[in-house]
Amino acid sequence: MLINCDLGEGFGAWKMGQDEQLMPYVDQANIACGFHAGDPVVMQRAVHHAKLNHVSIGAHPAYPDLQGFGRRSMRLSHSELIALLHYQIGALEGVAQSLGASVDYVKPHGALYNDMMADTDLLDIVMQGVADYHRPLSLMIQATPNWQTHQHMADKHRLTLLFEAFADRRYLDNGQLQPRAQPGAVLDAKQCIQQARQLIKEGKVTTVSGHNLSVKADTLCVHGDGEEALSIAAQLRSLIDELAS
Amino acid sequence: MLINCDLGEGFGAWKMGQDEQLMPYVDQANIACGFHAGDPVVMQRAVHHAKLNHVSIGAHPAYPDLQGFGRRSMRLSHSELIALLHYQIGALEGVAQSLGASVDYVKPHGALYNDMMADTDLLDIVMQGVADYHRPLSLMIQATPNWQTHQHMADKHRLTLLFEAFADRRYLDNGQLQPRAQPGAVLDAKQCIQQARQLIKEGKVTTVSGHNLSVKADTLCVHGDGEEALSIAAQLRSLIDELAS
Amino acid sequence: MLINCDLGEGFGAWKMGQDEQLMPYVDQANIACGFHAGDPVVMQRAVHHAKLNHVSIGAHPAYPDLQGFGRRSMRLSHSELIALLHYQIGALEGVAQSLGASVDYVKPHGALYNDMMADTDLLDIVMQGVADYHRPLSLMIQATPNWQTHQHMADKHRLTLLFEAFADRRYLDNGQLQPRAQPGAVLDAKQCIQQARQLIKEGKVTTVSGHNLSVKADTLCVHGDGEEALSIAAQLRSLIDELAS
Amino acid sequence: MLINCDLGEGFGAWKMGQDEQLMPYVDQANIACGFHAGDPVVMQRAVHHAKLNHVSIGAHPAYPDLQGFGRRSMRLSHSELIALLHYQIGALEGVAQSLGASVDYVKPHGALYNDMMADTDLLDIVMQGVADYHRPLSLMIQATPNWQTHQHMADKHRLTLLFEAFADRRYLDNGQLQPRAQPGAVLDAKQCIQQARQLIKEGKVTTVSGHNLSVKADTLCVHGDGEEALSIAAQLRSLIDELAS
Repeated sequence: MLINCDLGEGFGAWKMGQDEQLMPYVDQANIACGFHAGDPVVMQRAVHHAKLNHVSIGAHPAYPDLQGFGRRSMRLSHSELIALLHYQIGALEGVAQSLGASVDYVKPHGALYNDMMADTDLLDIVMQGVADYHRPLSLMIQATPNWQTHQHMADKHRLTLLFEAFADRRYLDNGQLQPRAQPGAVLDAKQCIQQARQLIKEGKVTTVSGHNLSVKADTLCVHGDGEEALSIAAQLRSLIDELAS
Repeated sequence: MLINCDLGEGFGAWKMGQDEQLMPYVDQANIACGFHAGDPVVMQRAVHHAKLNHVSIGAHPAYPDLQGFGRRSMRLSHSELIALLHYQIGALEGVAQSLGASVDYVKPHGALYNDMMADTDLLDIVMQGVADYHRPLSLMIQATPNWQTHQHMADKHRLTLLFEAFADRRYLDNGQLQPRAQPGAVLDAKQCIQQARQLIKEGKVTTVSGHNLSVKADTLCVHGDGEEALSIAAQLRSLIDELAS
Repeated sequence: MLINCDLGEGFGAWKMGQDEQLMPYVDQANIACGFHAGDPVVMQRAVHHAKLNHVSIGAHPAYPDLQGFGRRSMRLSHSELIALLHYQIGALEGVAQSLGASVDYVKPHGALYNDMMADTDLLDIVMQGVADYHRPLSLMIQATPNWQTHQHMADKHRLTLLFEAFADRRYLDNGQLQPRAQPGAVLDAKQCIQQARQLIKEGKVTTVSGHNLSVKADTLCVHGDGEEALSIAAQLRSLIDELAS
Repeated sequence: MLINCDLGEGFGAWKMGQDEQLMPYVDQANIACGFHAGDPVVMQRAVHHAKLNHVSIGAHPAYPDLQGFGRRSMRLSHSELIALLHYQIGALEGVAQSLGASVDYVKPHGALYNDMMADTDLLDIVMQGVADYHRPLSLMIQATPNWQTHQHMADKHRLTLLFEAFADRRYLDNGQLQPRAQPGAVLDAKQCIQQARQLIKEGKVTTVSGHNLSVKADTLCVHGDGEEALSIAAQLRSLIDELAS
């Protein structure tokens, strides 16, 4: 089990997250590509720290919406969405490869991520966009009960998937995350470590109604903001290292 | 002698220039990378037409200034400028290579171009930025009486230069272009062809004061906007093909 | 019956529409406020020409989406939408009043317009936003078979409505416009004048299925782009002046 | 003596400064207008807190440069600069007046502020821009040894000036601030209070070389970021209240 985290989400004079402190605990850095966050300097810095810490680099492309931090859904044509993916992945590659690092995978951000998980047609377009990129890259998506459908779709595109689960979010019985606005949707540090342990050891999560749901994940997403972010990341790192040894 | 042209300078709903009509006449397309013009869809379309017409593709990076079309000078730190070049070149590569095309060279746009031609230190940073890019790319700069200095600088960076001359602009005795605002600074179609012929056959231009100035250029820049743009491009194409045969 | 037109939709170096030529034919100029188009200079120029031609000025606020020209739907919170309206209306007022002109009404643009016409809750928020503005302004919305509901809603906000009809678009039986993508949705010049005559004289349009639909409008929207825009505007002007005399 | 502070400098998901905590200590809030920081929601919140704390509201317009936080100099035409001022002031007024608050003054931000203080012609354009605004507003500029020249210029425009001094920056003998990059340029909390006391009681500052320089100021600028910002603001507030009683 790996740990992935959204990083490089500052912009210009504005900071976000604690990139440098988090890097030692994570395996995969999802780096913003300038459309929801991340200007070239911020991206360069994030790549630099990822490289220093031997962290795998993923492009974290988004809808073009700086003001809304890519959290607002937008309807784009298929060709526009693919152009937008290639632009953002390429931009990060331009920065990363010139620093001697490389981009390994793509994880769509925010509303684009939610939209593709809710709409199979959109997910297929995103898959096509990543598969059509000139270098082979993996695509990181959410591990859901539909994972086999998603795997079949990816196979058609000859695309490698990385499935991620959320250690710090309560799951619904259908495998979706409980909406953030609802009480209890975001787990505290202790619950989070517990859920992570269950995910790693059993490949399961206990849902909001108490059912055990099978969730097969390659990587756990941790969040870089919030007061406990660093502490949670450190505990997850220890947990994973302990279970692996 | 080649012909280069700034293309792909629309943005969203806004058009600029006549990309499709101009492509058949040019050898090199300087394609905007999103900072002064050109969104991912516009870039994809420009690359597509360049590829159809076997036109060499250059990245046309700019200061981040959509509202000012990259024509406003901006002081950036060295590392910021380099990050910004890698981002924009990479973004175009992401789009281009995914369409089976490749980026061959870099030509800075607008104020960035003017600033680097006026400031040797800045030119050196731009050279470093292009040289540090992970793939070898040429840099297109203006052919001036200082071309040997520029060549030495480029040699240190192991960078290939492409020198360009302007067929449609009046030259000053010092080899700079007469400022656009001055009367006579922009040549009409007839004068333009005449100056192009002189540049190609003799490697010289007649300056505003009547002197003959040596200008050794690899490529002539034509402008894609203006009513006569297409006609001038067609005439230049004929002239070059005629002189080459 | 008045004529309204979207104007001031250039941005930076990019032009759109034929503002100066259209102004003499229209009564109301919907001027972009910088979020989908229109920078301060473009806005200043549009206001200047509106004032010269004694044209009433309306704010034409949009979702923050320059790249998508405000044509992409975006879900905003209520308070965000209201803040966004006040910002854009205020910005246009700052420019207009300093030139001795004033803003008379608000007409939301593109996706925001479509969204509010399709969603009564959203329309209510827009009404509240305009009603909460510190000066009384009218709100321009589409004249539909639901106009009485809309009028009741506006009355609660003590808001004056301006109802607009479309001379150049085919109507469906339910009073909505036939989607642009469908053949025949956009009328040619001759059909357009015919429909305008029917709207003015009878307060009706003949729908796509041949029914006569009652459409009570205060103003007709003409489009500023397209080759025939000027000619249509001139013919509408003549028609209205002729019918009024 | 009053206290002014730059506030409302967040953007979208990004925070900056500690607006709510600072408001009780300041008399004048310079609120960003969307060009270097501040979206409509951020502006609305800043206005709301200013009003709650009976703080005077100033527009804090900037060059259009979100990525550079308005700290990069840009050459604009005179008419563009004036349009840009009217747009930004108007936008803030739209938000403020709709909340029952009003804008009292204008203080240009960052590079625009520095440029106008270094270039009398530019300062004259800024004065004209503020004077041409449709409502009378004061202009806040730096108190320098040239204050009488500036006062004469303002008189011609019938413009009221507010002179500000910096409590937390070391002055050069010529009345300019020591560049931030130089050691000792930014005063610590203790030095800052000492310099404030000297400015208030004697109208003087002790420069870097030990000279006493006359600086007649109406208001002291405090900075909202930095760890000590709150503590310094609180101490300045106490100092001013104590000296006034």
